[in-house]
Amino acid sequence: MEKTLGELAALVGGELRGPADLKIRGLAPVDRATPEDLTFIAHPRFARLGEATQAGAVIVSPQWADLDKPLIVVDQPYLAYARVAALFAPARPRWTGVSDQAYLGRDVHLGRDVSVAPLVFLGDGVSLGDRVTLMPGCYIGPDTVIGDDTYLAPNVTVLERCRVGARVLIHSGAVIGADGFGFIPTPEGQMKIPQLGSVVVEDDVEIGANVTIDRGAMGETLIGRGVKIDNLVQVAHNVTLGDHTVMAAQAGVAGSTQIGQWVALGGQAGLVGHIEVGDRTQIGAQSGVTASVPPDQVLLGSPAWPIKETRRIWAGWHTLPELYRRVRKMEQQLSQLTTLLERKAET
Amino acid sequence: MEKTLGELAALVGGELRGPADLKIRGLAPVDRATPEDLTFIAHPRFARLGEATQAGAVIVSPQWADLDKPLIVVDQPYLAYARVAALFAPARPRWTGVSDQAYLGRDVHLGRDVSVAPLVFLGDGVSLGDRVTLMPGCYIGPDTVIGDDTYLAPNVTVLERCRVGARVLIHSGAVIGADGFGFIPTPEGQMKIPQLGSVVVEDDVEIGANVTIDRGAMGETLIGRGVKIDNLVQVAHNVTLGDHTVMAAQAGVAGSTQIGQWVALGGQAGLVGHIEVGDRTQIGAQSGVTASVPPDQVLLGSPAWPIKETRRIWAGWHTLPELYRRVRKMEQQLSQLTTLLERKAET
Amino acid sequence: MEKTLGELAALVGGELRGPADLKIRGLAPVDRATPEDLTFIAHPRFARLGEATQAGAVIVSPQWADLDKPLIVVDQPYLAYARVAALFAPARPRWTGVSDQAYLGRDVHLGRDVSVAPLVFLGDGVSLGDRVTLMPGCYIGPDTVIGDDTYLAPNVTVLERCRVGARVLIHSGAVIGADGFGFIPTPEGQMKIPQLGSVVVEDDVEIGANVTIDRGAMGETLIGRGVKIDNLVQVAHNVTLGDHTVMAAQAGVAGSTQIGQWVALGGQAGLVGHIEVGDRTQIGAQSGVTASVPPDQVLLGSPAWPIKETRRIWAGWHTLPELYRRVRKMEQQLSQLTTLLERKAET
Repeated sequence: MEKTLGELAALVGGELRGPADLKIRGLAPVDRATPEDLTFIAHPRFARLGEATQAGAVIVSPQWADLDKPLIVVDQPYLAYARVAALFAPARPRWTGVSDQAYLGRDVHLGRDVSVAPLVFLGDGVSLGDRVTLMPGCYIGPDTVIGDDTYLAPNVTVLERCRVGARVLIHSGAVIGADGFGFIPTPEGQMKIPQLGSVVVEDDVEIGANVTIDRGAMGETLIGRGVKIDNLVQVAHNVTLGDHTVMAAQAGVAGSTQIGQWVALGGQAGLVGHIEVGDRTQIGAQSGVTASVPPDQVLLGSPAWPIKETRRIWAGWHTLPELYRRVRKMEQQLSQLTTLLERKAET
Repeated sequence: MEKTLGELAALVGGELRGPADLKIRGLAPVDRATPEDLTFIAHPRFARLGEATQAGAVIVSPQWADLDKPLIVVDQPYLAYARVAALFAPARPRWTGVSDQAYLGRDVHLGRDVSVAPLVFLGDGVSLGDRVTLMPGCYIGPDTVIGDDTYLAPNVTVLERCRVGARVLIHSGAVIGADGFGFIPTPEGQMKIPQLGSVVVEDDVEIGANVTIDRGAMGETLIGRGVKIDNLVQVAHNVTLGDHTVMAAQAGVAGSTQIGQWVALGGQAGLVGHIEVGDRTQIGAQSGVTASVPPDQVLLGSPAWPIKETRRIWAGWHTLPELYRRVRKMEQQLSQLTTLLERKAET
Repeated sequence: MEKTLGELAALVGGELRGPADLKIRGLAPVDRATPEDLTFIAHPRFARLGEATQAGAVIVSPQWADLDKPLIVVDQPYLAYARVAALFAPARPRWTGVSDQAYLGRDVHLGRDVSVAPLVFLGDGVSLGDRVTLMPGCYIGPDTVIGDDTYLAPNVTVLERCRVGARVLIHSGAVIGADGFGFIPTPEGQMKIPQLGSVVVEDDVEIGANVTIDRGAMGETLIGRGVKIDNLVQVAHNVTLGDHTVMAAQAGVAGSTQIGQWVALGGQAGLVGHIEVGDRTQIGAQSGVTASVPPDQVLLGSPAWPIKETRRIWAGWHTLPELYRRVRKMEQQLSQLTTLLERKAET
């Protein structure tokens, strides 16, 4: 792939400062770019590296526009970089057509130009939209529906009766639609509560490697439009993730919790079941959320409190030993004072 | 599937209040049920929804028995619901017979009516009990034994020389019998301690999606009868989980720890190695257990203490900033008092 | 396998105290060994079991050399045990040759004596070194290179354009090279930042079951030589793990963080992105590291502080309720004293 700097400036709607016909063949970090690469400076931390970069050209914000290099000047360099990167990104691997070494059940519906690799298993009644890609090792359970342009990386499992939307990307090892975790202790042992529901994944969702999303006990577990889920995340039965919400790696949400739109959950954060989290709320890494949260909050800690309060608490821990010394010292002083006063009283 | 309300009342041993011949075709949540569905009210929270439900009939406890609907009255509505749900649950997908596209090693023993799907691999010397189901993508290592009626969902890995009991359910992506994590640092690097043991999973166990249970270093990692393990849980080498113990999602137990019967571990909880946890003890979500725990305890926090103490500690954090202010104020007062007294002493 | 005690003493460079021709057929824990087994005592905790062991012989350190048993006396019994265990360990399962039921893309390079099992998929341009083993269900993406003597357990996924070194062991369910997690929120939704980089796994690495290691956004995610990673660990894009570093189960490292050599990360520990951790630093289980750490530190807690400080803080929490009582009591005393003094002043 080769593009001119002028083409790339036009693509990102940026101001070109340099030769429009400069050839760009790739993207690279500022400290590793070659003269054929475009790079970008989005953070002041990397600004000084801009002076020394070998890159052929640099995407910068107006504040760095005095750099002595061919430039594309934009308000949001990171966004512009992402657009250029999408252009240079190699196509994902894809089998051409339907392999005769894939296993197709009865009554399978295949859209136009689907890609079904060897070692794929489709249960009875599966429906694939147009241009769906199923890489090797994928299992699609009976009566599951997969929307147009959705891509399943190798070794993804989507169990029976689930619905996956269009333009969804599911990474390897993810398991969609395993049983929710529901048992009632009885004298004879844990009695299983059958998990009769399903999982609905809406359009434009991305699901990370080795993520688990359980089917509802009754009804559905719902992953809203545009949600992005990082690796090793757990989403329990009957959870709802609102549109455009993001979950960082190893976070987990317990059963029936309803999460709003544009929420951000940090890595290793955990939410108990049966609560609600309002739109746009942010939960810090390793936080533990044990009660419902209104919209537009920023929470941190385990248990989670508003971030300012948690920061104050953490600062407090730090000086706890000193506090003990001060209290002990005061107790002594107070005791001495009391003794002194008692003596005085006697005299 | 269609059942009469009378049949269902008999199944759960409940009192029928309504037409015995009412036809029920499914189960649904109280707010989404149709006149052909049965629903249930197990929690006061949902009681008010009972008035408005469209359900054909409702399973209720005696306290809600005045509801103006066809009813099945039972002491434990949730348990009754679970029994009815088991009746209505669709059968799990299952390949009929042994696929000629599965790979069977030498000296494989197959019980009656086993189901071995395409894309399954059985190592040499594998033994499958009667009615075992292995879904596509499962790998069973050499000399591993799987008991009657056990069901392995797609893409499960059970490595060599493990034993899995009867009526076990293992969800997709679980890995049973990978090497335990044991290394000795030496000047040349981390030296591997060979993991010579195996994993024993007893009868009636359920193992969640993407769970990992490592083989013993020597001897066995033991998952006791009736244990239930949620998704993404880690069980290290030589751990014992006692009968009927449950582990919620993303919990982890380090090597050689011995956990009793009917223990409950919350989500994302972690236990260090080489400790013992007594029967019936409960460990809260995100707790960190660093020492042995007697039976019948309820622990919470990281590090974990008895739940009452942790609750008190957490309440304490909350008011730490105020405590600092109070201590500072007292110091000033004390200083003033002391000055005052000294002046008095002088006069 | 059968060895004499003399052969084993020579193997580990230990002092033989007992019959050189004693036959040893296996290894077993001290409390479960039979007269044909060798066992070892590496920890004072197990010393008393040594008296009662049925083992044919015992590996001991000089301090336990008075045990009335055939002995191998060494300075480091655990290390000696590991060496003997490597001798007795059964060979890992391995398919002989390249199965005609494996799927090989175009331009695949196969080293000498490779083992490619049925149900393996190799993309175009894959290169396998000598004696590489790929167990059933493994997927190797286009242009990925795997070094000599590397072993991939069943159902491992290594995606396109990654490099895996020699003598690497990857356990089942691990996913190497999925997309890093990078999005920019825009009014239309989360915009994906293409992940153009790759993963490099150097020689002698071990990667646990269901681990996820993401490809770099640009450039590489780097797993240094001799690194050992336990199950269910998350390594984000552009992370570097220095040589011989170990990560315990369920730990996670966020993007671009640089970890030194011989670092140890405890179970469920989490590190934020864009920080540096110095060589030989140890991070305790469940710790949360939010800032760079110099070499040779021992950190614990969430947030993580030097272990001594965290221990002091935890001890402090424990007595917080008592501290409150003491402060309240002092306030009362102080109030009484003040009143008393004021009265005195009046008189």
